[in-house]
Amino acid sequence: MAVDMHEVRNYFIQLQESICARLEAFEPTMRFLREDIETPGGGLSRPRVIAGGEVIEKAAVQFTHSIGAALPPSATERNPHLAGRPFQAAAISLIVHPLNPYVPTTHMNLRYFVVDGVDGTWYFGGGFDLTPFYANRQDIVHWHRTAAAAAGEHYPAMKAACDDYFYLPHRQEPRGVGGVFFDDWTTGGDAASFALVQRIGDAFLPAYVPIVERRKDQPYRERERNWQCYRRGRYAEFNLAIDRGTRYGLQSGRRIESVLASLPPVVTWEYQRAIPHGSPEAALMDALTPRDWLANAD
Amino acid sequence: MAVDMHEVRNYFIQLQESICARLEAFEPTMRFLREDIETPGGGLSRPRVIAGGEVIEKAAVQFTHSIGAALPPSATERNPHLAGRPFQAAAISLIVHPLNPYVPTTHMNLRYFVVDGVDGTWYFGGGFDLTPFYANRQDIVHWHRTAAAAAGEHYPAMKAACDDYFYLPHRQEPRGVGGVFFDDWTTGGDAASFALVQRIGDAFLPAYVPIVERRKDQPYRERERNWQCYRRGRYAEFNLAIDRGTRYGLQSGRRIESVLASLPPVVTWEYQRAIPHGSPEAALMDALTPRDWLANAD
Repeated sequence: MAVDMHEVRNYFIQLQESICARLEAFEPTMRFLREDIETPGGGLSRPRVIAGGEVIEKAAVQFTHSIGAALPPSATERNPHLAGRPFQAAAISLIVHPLNPYVPTTHMNLRYFVVDGVDGTWYFGGGFDLTPFYANRQDIVHWHRTAAAAAGEHYPAMKAACDDYFYLPHRQEPRGVGGVFFDDWTTGGDAASFALVQRIGDAFLPAYVPIVERRKDQPYRERERNWQCYRRGRYAEFNLAIDRGTRYGLQSGRRIESVLASLPPVVTWEYQRAIPHGSPEAALMDALTPRDWLANAD
Repeated sequence: MAVDMHEVRNYFIQLQESICARLEAFEPTMRFLREDIETPGGGLSRPRVIAGGEVIEKAAVQFTHSIGAALPPSATERNPHLAGRPFQAAAISLIVHPLNPYVPTTHMNLRYFVVDGVDGTWYFGGGFDLTPFYANRQDIVHWHRTAAAAAGEHYPAMKAACDDYFYLPHRQEPRGVGGVFFDDWTTGGDAASFALVQRIGDAFLPAYVPIVERRKDQPYRERERNWQCYRRGRYAEFNLAIDRGTRYGLQSGRRIESVLASLPPVVTWEYQRAIPHGSPEAALMDALTPRDWLANAD
């Protein structure tokens, strides 16, 4: 039996509120631009975007409840029998691009799909992942420890799925240091699935906020800023060329400014940029190789 | 009968040389980074990239001769019977990202495909297009007049194909003011096709250089630079999410730094940026609507 859409919707909206409130607490004056847009047929879009802050250069925390006449192809690649069916989808999706290069970029997405008229066809998907510009073992271990506590027995599989998904094949490079990722999730039935999704959603702030607190005032110079803007190019490449969520957004006719609010505020592309051997930038590249961050953590 | 690959290859390499030499003439000190990379099986890659110039912020003028065991799916979307066949492809591909926001970005691509073992399966493709940040009618008319002289009777169809191809459906926005575009081109047979490709290739510098000369010293401020970086976001979106050439490059296992050398040096993404009514920025948006630039040109 599917989880009631209103329950999921309410949870996602409440989570969006608490995440926006906590991120805003980092900012002395900047506030999220808040909009509530009702879409034809009972859908709702609640874009929340902040830019130009002292800690957050740009962040988008979006909620969408879509009611659609026909699932687009990109949403049904692995479930082709569902193509063209009417559906409902609720999703919270966020990205944070911090100003300080020592604070990692992060992304979270939680979503719930119900396909109307197909008995028992519903699933959850989502996860969160971390994309540092400099590798701090303490931060990465904390991130994975919090993720593991939330995902419980599912952590190893979700961690592997995250490493698998956030990968740029054309660069042969992971996007970041991972986290958890799941899709087509119905494990244990409706109540257990929704409870797991809530544990993961509730774990986002405890996973991310301590890292921001620890790094946001760390001094940096042009070199680190430059590296950050360069590495953000990988983020743009992933989102525009690879990410299923973005491709779905581009095809779905959703409000394009919401779909692409995830793109970094400033990006540079540099040809054949060299990474000096033994540098902190080289250490990041090394840290991107997937590993068990909780083994011998301390 | 197919055109001899060596003839096409020699023409593309000579064109690459003359374009690089002319672009370098704008620069007091910066020079193209030149590499010649032989690829397994007799292929050749000649990347040429310049960055940080006084006129050219970044430009890539690439030549590639690929000899491939199997055509990738993205190259055969409209010719599915060719998928998996061995092939040869020669291409010159260039992009210029000027520093001054009054100088338009431009792109040219010319390519020749021969599918081995399929009698008579060869074609040319390519074209050039212009992406201004500010609309100067004089520049755009000159661009299209030069394109029309080169393409002759084929100009109307090639101009329409260009408007059609360089379009961002998710933005419902043309990428620029167009030019000429053609694909699967065999019209008139091998000699006539190759002659047309050469006329178009030879027209690139006469079409672009006078515009650069006219605008490169035009004073600009932060406002114009900011708009340029913002508009370059559309370029990155097109290249990464839409362009068939880039998708082919990402799939083909070609040297990724060459494939993505086309990406702009600095890009910004800004949420819901407003374009003031009656501003020069609004005038650009108006100029993007396809039209016959040669009607009543003067």
